[in-house]
Amino acid sequence: MRLISYELNGAEGVGVMVDDSGFVPVASAAPDLPATMLGLLEQDGAIDALKGAADGKPAEMTLADVKLLPVVPNPKAIWCVGVNYKEHQDETGRGAQEEPMIFLRIAEAQIAHGDPMVRPSFSDTLDWEGELAVIIGRRGRAIPREKAFDHIAGYSIYNDGSVREWQRHTSQFGPGKNFQDTGGFGPWMVTPDEFGDPYAHELTTRINGEQVQHTGIAAMDHKIDKLINYLSTAVTLNPGDVIATGTPGGVGSRRNPPWYMKPGDVCTVEITGIGVLENPVIDG
Amino acid sequence: MRLISYELNGAEGVGVMVDDSGFVPVASAAPDLPATMLGLLEQDGAIDALKGAADGKPAEMTLADVKLLPVVPNPKAIWCVGVNYKEHQDETGRGAQEEPMIFLRIAEAQIAHGDPMVRPSFSDTLDWEGELAVIIGRRGRAIPREKAFDHIAGYSIYNDGSVREWQRHTSQFGPGKNFQDTGGFGPWMVTPDEFGDPYAHELTTRINGEQVQHTGIAAMDHKIDKLINYLSTAVTLNPGDVIATGTPGGVGSRRNPPWYMKPGDVCTVEITGIGVLENPVIDG
Repeated sequence: MRLISYELNGAEGVGVMVDDSGFVPVASAAPDLPATMLGLLEQDGAIDALKGAADGKPAEMTLADVKLLPVVPNPKAIWCVGVNYKEHQDETGRGAQEEPMIFLRIAEAQIAHGDPMVRPSFSDTLDWEGELAVIIGRRGRAIPREKAFDHIAGYSIYNDGSVREWQRHTSQFGPGKNFQDTGGFGPWMVTPDEFGDPYAHELTTRINGEQVQHTGIAAMDHKIDKLINYLSTAVTLNPGDVIATGTPGGVGSRRNPPWYMKPGDVCTVEITGIGVLENPVIDG
Repeated sequence: MRLISYELNGAEGVGVMVDDSGFVPVASAAPDLPATMLGLLEQDGAIDALKGAADGKPAEMTLADVKLLPVVPNPKAIWCVGVNYKEHQDETGRGAQEEPMIFLRIAEAQIAHGDPMVRPSFSDTLDWEGELAVIIGRRGRAIPREKAFDHIAGYSIYNDGSVREWQRHTSQFGPGKNFQDTGGFGPWMVTPDEFGDPYAHELTTRINGEQVQHTGIAAMDHKIDKLINYLSTAVTLNPGDVIATGTPGGVGSRRNPPWYMKPGDVCTVEITGIGVLENPVIDG
């Protein structure tokens, strides 16, 4: 099952995709269920109930009828993992990390599939970072690695858009990772039964169609179960929380010469089994 | 005006303090206004209206009648500033920063005044960091320094409780700054008219009554107007967002020998013009 978050007439909704454009609104397929992504994720069993209710229903709307939102518009936490693929460890010179390198993004900086990614007017260092996003579906603390996958509601694509000069103002990535309208998150959440083994999939980032990043997800260093165990050792993971699992080699800032995104560019991140997250770049 | 967030019978409320214990619930003083802190902050003019409505009203309840909550229980962003006082720059060896060092905490890790601060069972490096908290009251982006104070709803106290060994797992402070029940935030928000000039005040952190940190707020390096300008250059600041403006010298981890909090300790952070944030330490 693939779920979108959208806005229609000022109200948030969730849709079950029937094909690559048509969908059934949750409010129509299952009017008793919460009609927001966070609401669905927070209600125990709601995603399974939705699966039963939407099964076989024809599309009632298409993506053109609504404004897509970030898959989870308002997560309580967006955990990001730094240098979690060897090629990116090598190109940044940061090397392998004994424990996951963790920083945070905020919901305010998110954009949906199709939304413009905004390069701030005073910077020319807006960079791409295609990543597999894991979406938590069940609250937990100190989750053992062998139970980590029980806490996953689904998968999506994150573009951890980064303003590099601000990221390097100090040792902490903070604001460079949180510029307005730089965090691409979409197009939809794919449930685990449909996505299957995450490590069987591949990620490709392209600028104007030209491949700039490519990896098998299997090359991930700290694996998903470790990330869930590590984070939940520190603090409760809540439904709707996002883990952006890190970007592979090929970011623009580590190229020679550097290659940054500029207005008019189109950045896409594709993950097999999910689809394509596309964002055009504009000046802001 | 001093405002508390509290919980009573499972519902969130806001109270206007009449003295150091008695308060008037907003739901009683001004039933037309939102009865949650985030709701009040988000509604233009609500704090001023509340001031008028609550003025001269006698206390209807006391702190003993309710469970205090973190001053803003659910901020969309909790911005923290690293090494923002010279003594702390010196003791950490990190030195002065040309731009503010920024990292994030999440709401899930917050605790209220009086709540236990939890030392994780597997660590003995729980450390204190007393800080002045600035609470945003008006949405804004690219806020000029000279207008920064127009965006402040009030001030409170933050204890940026830190699990040092986890903070040092990698270059990013991430999880060490986000352990469950380590972010003390309270006891209340004091509005700017009552708090006056922030730089005229002093901060003191004590463990079991013994002073461990003391500074004038005036010694802050990157000042409040700069922090608001810097952050809002990157991303919109929203009502309810918190800026924990950094801790002075005297943290436990930089002492010789190091001095960490242990179960049974009581940590207090006092800021003149606000009051005292007190949290007992327990094992978790």
